[in-house]
Amino acid sequence: MKSYRANLGGGIDGIVMRDEAIPSPGPHQILVAVRAVSLNARELMILQGYYPLPVKPDLIPVSDGAGEVVAIGDGVTRVKIGDRIAASIFPRWIDGPFGWDYSAQLGGSLDGMLSEYALLPEDAAVQIPPHLSYEEAATLPCAAVTAWNALSGGVPLLPGQTVLTQGSGGVSLFALQLARLFGARVIATTSSDDKAQRLTALGADAVINYRTTPDWHACVREMTGGRGVDVIVEVGGAGTMEQSLKAVALSGQISQVGSLDKSAASIGIAALSATVTSIRRIAVGNRAQFLAMNSAIAMHGLRPVIDSVFAFEDAVEAFRYYARGEAFGKIVIRHD
Amino acid sequence: MKSYRANLGGGIDGIVMRDEAIPSPGPHQILVAVRAVSLNARELMILQGYYPLPVKPDLIPVSDGAGEVVAIGDGVTRVKIGDRIAASIFPRWIDGPFGWDYSAQLGGSLDGMLSEYALLPEDAAVQIPPHLSYEEAATLPCAAVTAWNALSGGVPLLPGQTVLTQGSGGVSLFALQLARLFGARVIATTSSDDKAQRLTALGADAVINYRTTPDWHACVREMTGGRGVDVIVEVGGAGTMEQSLKAVALSGQISQVGSLDKSAASIGIAALSATVTSIRRIAVGNRAQFLAMNSAIAMHGLRPVIDSVFAFEDAVEAFRYYARGEAFGKIVIRHD
Amino acid sequence: MKSYRANLGGGIDGIVMRDEAIPSPGPHQILVAVRAVSLNARELMILQGYYPLPVKPDLIPVSDGAGEVVAIGDGVTRVKIGDRIAASIFPRWIDGPFGWDYSAQLGGSLDGMLSEYALLPEDAAVQIPPHLSYEEAATLPCAAVTAWNALSGGVPLLPGQTVLTQGSGGVSLFALQLARLFGARVIATTSSDDKAQRLTALGADAVINYRTTPDWHACVREMTGGRGVDVIVEVGGAGTMEQSLKAVALSGQISQVGSLDKSAASIGIAALSATVTSIRRIAVGNRAQFLAMNSAIAMHGLRPVIDSVFAFEDAVEAFRYYARGEAFGKIVIRHD
Amino acid sequence: MKSYRANLGGGIDGIVMRDEAIPSPGPHQILVAVRAVSLNARELMILQGYYPLPVKPDLIPVSDGAGEVVAIGDGVTRVKIGDRIAASIFPRWIDGPFGWDYSAQLGGSLDGMLSEYALLPEDAAVQIPPHLSYEEAATLPCAAVTAWNALSGGVPLLPGQTVLTQGSGGVSLFALQLARLFGARVIATTSSDDKAQRLTALGADAVINYRTTPDWHACVREMTGGRGVDVIVEVGGAGTMEQSLKAVALSGQISQVGSLDKSAASIGIAALSATVTSIRRIAVGNRAQFLAMNSAIAMHGLRPVIDSVFAFEDAVEAFRYYARGEAFGKIVIRHD
Repeated sequence: MKSYRANLGGGIDGIVMRDEAIPSPGPHQILVAVRAVSLNARELMILQGYYPLPVKPDLIPVSDGAGEVVAIGDGVTRVKIGDRIAASIFPRWIDGPFGWDYSAQLGGSLDGMLSEYALLPEDAAVQIPPHLSYEEAATLPCAAVTAWNALSGGVPLLPGQTVLTQGSGGVSLFALQLARLFGARVIATTSSDDKAQRLTALGADAVINYRTTPDWHACVREMTGGRGVDVIVEVGGAGTMEQSLKAVALSGQISQVGSLDKSAASIGIAALSATVTSIRRIAVGNRAQFLAMNSAIAMHGLRPVIDSVFAFEDAVEAFRYYARGEAFGKIVIRHD
Repeated sequence: MKSYRANLGGGIDGIVMRDEAIPSPGPHQILVAVRAVSLNARELMILQGYYPLPVKPDLIPVSDGAGEVVAIGDGVTRVKIGDRIAASIFPRWIDGPFGWDYSAQLGGSLDGMLSEYALLPEDAAVQIPPHLSYEEAATLPCAAVTAWNALSGGVPLLPGQTVLTQGSGGVSLFALQLARLFGARVIATTSSDDKAQRLTALGADAVINYRTTPDWHACVREMTGGRGVDVIVEVGGAGTMEQSLKAVALSGQISQVGSLDKSAASIGIAALSATVTSIRRIAVGNRAQFLAMNSAIAMHGLRPVIDSVFAFEDAVEAFRYYARGEAFGKIVIRHD
Repeated sequence: MKSYRANLGGGIDGIVMRDEAIPSPGPHQILVAVRAVSLNARELMILQGYYPLPVKPDLIPVSDGAGEVVAIGDGVTRVKIGDRIAASIFPRWIDGPFGWDYSAQLGGSLDGMLSEYALLPEDAAVQIPPHLSYEEAATLPCAAVTAWNALSGGVPLLPGQTVLTQGSGGVSLFALQLARLFGARVIATTSSDDKAQRLTALGADAVINYRTTPDWHACVREMTGGRGVDVIVEVGGAGTMEQSLKAVALSGQISQVGSLDKSAASIGIAALSATVTSIRRIAVGNRAQFLAMNSAIAMHGLRPVIDSVFAFEDAVEAFRYYARGEAFGKIVIRHD
Repeated sequence: MKSYRANLGGGIDGIVMRDEAIPSPGPHQILVAVRAVSLNARELMILQGYYPLPVKPDLIPVSDGAGEVVAIGDGVTRVKIGDRIAASIFPRWIDGPFGWDYSAQLGGSLDGMLSEYALLPEDAAVQIPPHLSYEEAATLPCAAVTAWNALSGGVPLLPGQTVLTQGSGGVSLFALQLARLFGARVIATTSSDDKAQRLTALGADAVINYRTTPDWHACVREMTGGRGVDVIVEVGGAGTMEQSLKAVALSGQISQVGSLDKSAASIGIAALSATVTSIRRIAVGNRAQFLAMNSAIAMHGLRPVIDSVFAFEDAVEAFRYYARGEAFGKIVIRHD
């Protein structure tokens, strides 16, 4: 089989493709013929050398993937050959809050999905919603589960509440689409009128251009009759947190999803102490959340937004495109 | 002003209309020109003499009503004259779980709404969703808040989950409509194909006729791929509880909403011990739930189902019609 | 190694001892030298043939055990050789609510602990609190985790609240001891003054003899100033549930722990509908709860109550003694 | 009656004493003969002119007080004459999360307790635990309720978990004492060995002198076997938040209690994004929490720590002493 291999801090140029033997599944393991993978910020963080969790050397990179089960080991009960599955990033994180015991992760301390075949613990397998293609399903494990956790992992999000999303990255677009399934109203921020139109088409009830409205928090207050929004899916870090603290409702929630921030940026303690809110740091989500989300996606026929699809042979090019940060939606690499 | 008066156990025939002086609001009180009220099982329970909470003598009956604020007392901050409001049944139950401290209730230990004017504590006032008429808003305090609590008061209801409703009483119809706002799928039971059509028109994804399918729990299992439903809004008491216990998913929830049951009926302990579920007894809901529900109703333009509207002068007739139990939706009494 | 084997419905007489080869651990498996096991009602249910979950033929019986890790397979990270561990009954139930996906269980669909060695998935392993002997640790997996879940798995139990426990079975005694760690007051029911003294010595604040006070719910009301108790660990089934419904506080919780009830006994729906409470059916608990409980047990030096200890060779005698139902605390079988 | 009066930004020197008429209670109001009050940071914030909530002119200052009910208005049911009560700071915040609707507060937008008599809504009244003196009860409304909320208002605190408290202010001492009632272990930070001894005497399991151990987060990690603490009652603002983020366990909670911070201090976004935790901003707590806490205090005989007691005539001196920030425990002003 053909697999890509990479190393912590090895950069995009350090990714190499190899021919390897197809592994065979041991007890409670499954072999998956990978059909598609998708890229996330974590991939770049690993290649650039600053990732908060352990990374194995000579790693098959990429956490997110989907494929078909082609072989199963002894004792496997959760899937059977022929099943269409996606993989949960943290195979040991089944339910409940995150803990070190659960921190082994695909495309990190464990080999990932950028390969023709992936050997996975059966606990990582999650059935794909029937209406989704492999390309679409491959976008779910990191960005969509993060968005689902950001919306539903704290105090319950209720119909009639308002959610704020920021920009058009993978997590933000899923947050927008999923929030609609909860019956919530969505206010989205973006940097251009063109993107604003696309966000509206995805279901955003209101969009604020933060270039033309830099003090967007005031606009959010106005749009909510002064109350502020109930849940903010905060992905901007130091650049947006202070405005988020001003835009959130009393007793509201900020789900902090941003990547690990290496900068010396800071937020004023005054902003933090001037509100009555909760900030929850999100680290993807558990398998139970993935399964619950898939039920919602299947019931409502939600379709992930894919920016572009690259062939497996062009994987390195896909990474370079991802690094430019211009995508609206997910970048997928697929096998023919 | 004209008011109706009744007594615990006095029967429908014991209801009398009187001319009374219009009261004036004291501190933190408001005077409401009542425009419409709606009837609930509790009204009949009081008239028939078995009601679990204290009932004052010479009561202005009926808990549910909506109207316009026409005068306010000292210190009132929650409403102003001209506001369109409905009343929360338990004015002291602001948020959190029910307790004796909160048990004073309109149309029970306190005078209710079947009058031209009602004197209310400002804490009882809840703003009406703008798109609703007074008749529609008058249906919310008991049945809709109960349904909202039944759906959202325990473990959060998530999009992609399935809810079971029973029949076409007020609570059940609201549960059906509200569950859709949560992004849930709804299976409804009913007694006729005619009602089945109306339930489908209201948004039910599937309807089971329990006359032709008496073992409906098996049908529910089948419709859910063997899993069972996540939340059951159980209103049937002894007649349905055992089937509900068989129809609910592992770790699912049964919200028990039925009226106080005077019968000697019982449920087998075997059914109770054969599942892993929670049964939550529901007693309407608090004002915070009423407000949250109104946000959802307003955002989604939900319209309550009204079976029939009686004139204020024909209130006794409305009670008689309610007692026949044939209504599909709420029975409203309105002022011209 | 010597192992006992049994079959569903095979009775106590059907238990046989065999010489078997010591298994060796595969990937993510561990080999444990069992030092002690303890008995629970589930063992008798299996032997008597009515158990709600699947049971493998030719089963090594008994779910609860503790021992020393003597070998580990590839990829094991949660334990190392020499660790003192107990086993979580449902090895796949890591956290969150129970589901079928997690229902494989030791001494049921999987081989159990009544053997010199047990081959376990590493996920089943839970470190033993340092102050406990193997005999003491072997009492925890079923009864103590059930009690912990009964107390803490629903609405949080707070210091200053009151818990009711029933009798002196394993779950009830753990519930009494654990409730004290939560800062709660405990009222216990029992059948004799002798047992009452022992319950008081274990920390019960008040004890009611239900033989001499058959309407104990009234006594509980009196002891709580009319409020009722906040949490009831209900183990008596049809015999006690109606009184529990009368003894529980408004918005209180009943954790229903009783074994599967085969009888035709029933509870009046009137009692169920006359209160505002939640009934949660408990099925042991997950590994996260086991770990959290062990932290509490370790911090407070809690010691399980052991009624009697049998030698491994006398295991059948231990089952017979257990079946008599006279024990005060747990029955343990140990290896020399 | 004699009352003190003050104004927003008026300074300690602006406090004046006056002779006023004793008010008489209207409907749902009670008259309380105040026996003792206690001081909190909020009092100084008001006098210094930066307080986040509205402040009435010519205010009777001080939110916290306790006394005896001497008269009741029409319709009062929660208390009777002769009752020993304390006042809940936000009389309309009965239960659930904080909202603007509940923000009227004693000693702020409403007159407070620094008077011989206080006229209160009956909803503000909370019965005093029997073993407490009025001086002791007067310390509870702000500091103790804040500590209770900080410990129990988010994810439940369980026995066996570890809590970190900071310093020896009112909230921190109550957090230390209350955490013990939850069965938790307490690590406290302090600035001197003398205070360390007093914290140990109050029940702290470990104390860290942050003067001699400025990087105390590393010490906390060590004391918890690398895990970090489960709950931090964070009162230090910018000076401590970054260390708290490093000292908290994965999926742990930081309850941010510090006063409104006017400074330009900031926290690095890197610290915030490097953990998986929740930060909950705390604003005292609701009446239901006050009542629940009182049950715990009464059951366990907890006694508040009082630093010093001033006579009513010496109230201004008490404010000056409070402003020096040297107290270990609460400062009380009492009537003879």
